[in-house]
Amino acid sequence: MHANEAPLEPGLYLVATPIGNLEDITLRALRILRSVDRIACEDTRQTQKLLNHYDIQKPTVSYHMHNEAARTEELIAELKTGGRVAVVSDAGTPGIADPGGYLAQAAIVAGVPVFPVPGANAAVSALIASGLSTDRFTFHGFLPAKEGARKTALEALERSGTTHIFYEAPHRILGTLEDIAAVFGSSLPVVVARELTKMHEEFLRGTAKDVHATLAGRAQVRGEIVLLFAPTASEVVVTKSIAVEVAELRKSEGLSEMDALKRVAKARGIGKSEAYRELQREQNRLR
Amino acid sequence: MHANEAPLEPGLYLVATPIGNLEDITLRALRILRSVDRIACEDTRQTQKLLNHYDIQKPTVSYHMHNEAARTEELIAELKTGGRVAVVSDAGTPGIADPGGYLAQAAIVAGVPVFPVPGANAAVSALIASGLSTDRFTFHGFLPAKEGARKTALEALERSGTTHIFYEAPHRILGTLEDIAAVFGSSLPVVVARELTKMHEEFLRGTAKDVHATLAGRAQVRGEIVLLFAPTASEVVVTKSIAVEVAELRKSEGLSEMDALKRVAKARGIGKSEAYRELQREQNRLR
Repeated sequence: MHANEAPLEPGLYLVATPIGNLEDITLRALRILRSVDRIACEDTRQTQKLLNHYDIQKPTVSYHMHNEAARTEELIAELKTGGRVAVVSDAGTPGIADPGGYLAQAAIVAGVPVFPVPGANAAVSALIASGLSTDRFTFHGFLPAKEGARKTALEALERSGTTHIFYEAPHRILGTLEDIAAVFGSSLPVVVARELTKMHEEFLRGTAKDVHATLAGRAQVRGEIVLLFAPTASEVVVTKSIAVEVAELRKSEGLSEMDALKRVAKARGIGKSEAYRELQREQNRLR
Repeated sequence: MHANEAPLEPGLYLVATPIGNLEDITLRALRILRSVDRIACEDTRQTQKLLNHYDIQKPTVSYHMHNEAARTEELIAELKTGGRVAVVSDAGTPGIADPGGYLAQAAIVAGVPVFPVPGANAAVSALIASGLSTDRFTFHGFLPAKEGARKTALEALERSGTTHIFYEAPHRILGTLEDIAAVFGSSLPVVVARELTKMHEEFLRGTAKDVHATLAGRAQVRGEIVLLFAPTASEVVVTKSIAVEVAELRKSEGLSEMDALKRVAKARGIGKSEAYRELQREQNRLR
């Protein structure tokens, strides 16, 4: 439909593919997959299903983290002599949380044109239907699998102004929601998006506690998950002034001013610099 | 092509549309635009071009920041009685940097199903072909238009571990690159993506200084711009220990330990807590 008949320019094409629903592919992506010399795939069998569905006959080559160094050399050599190569991941936009980014960087270094061919992306799809703020968002990929590292990663997150987006495995989501409740409080609003774009697409929106209870009540949690939340400083009930809390901690625990301030900031769910500015405001009010 | 003939489920469909190349729309997006009762558009004239191109005859209704409150009420009433409404922005994925997010939130509150229909997005398209890290990225929308506020916003950015993505107007890009050079140093690698997915798509990759020089040498800069950079702490040359610098600043400028540490951290392009941990490591080494 409306096919552009001009020959395809040489270069590397980062082609987004569906994340579940085979209809989630653009007309340009289909045209480019039909026109390139070959398609570098994270998993050739996975991509072959898509190509079969759209009756695209094109040589594929595997490109994954275990062969990326050797394969990159081969593909870049082909691209430098005017080749047209598409790179796709198993699902969604290549170059994010998959080895495609490595190939893109190598192409750029080699002076080969790199063309993004947009389409489905799980993180952005989950975000727009989450109901959370989209003014600013940070995508983190997968959280660490081990609880200790996961909690540390959660503790390091910015506490206001951004919606955090993670991918999570279904067998880890309960543990992760427990960690979120421990770090941000069980009443933090979270969104769990599951089976995006598929028949059983689901958005669970509620507090960390409620979403955990819903998922814990199921025999099994399946499907890839996008997890989103936007901590805000305002959820913390503040009674004492920062100056008083800092002074108490310095006295009771012998902490330095900075350590005490860090502790207070963390307890309030705000950044250290925000706590510091608030402390300064308090001090100005007292003068 | 492979059209799904089942009737469309009632609900709100957030449908991604092209950002320049009319081919950048998915088969599902086209099917849904053909199947809904009506299409809420940021600008009906803009969307009509797309609908005409694909021969889609469907009532449109304007939905923008000046009428969103009244229109939301009307659309939610329609959705609550089983209506099927698509919402589109002028370009790209609705609900990000446009009024669509407001409608999505209202639908969620009203208990109406919300379906993301993925497709083109300028920020993600620019990111994957930027050559910068995609492990973690933060989208900020537009920078403030005024220089003072813009510099403050840049100064507040995280200094490591994330690729920052902004939209920028062509008539402001030179000033913004100057501010970036002032805040992060003129050798910070930046990427300017222009006219994405269009005939004259362009990626300028280089230091803030070089990309500025390239753009300054042109008669005019046109087209919407995505600006990306990923500051890293390692780019700063460190000669003195943090302890020495803090001590000097306390003495020369009468700063508190915390203010001095903040200043040193900023000069090194690292976070305050990172600077503090490094200070502690230095002190442990001295013991």
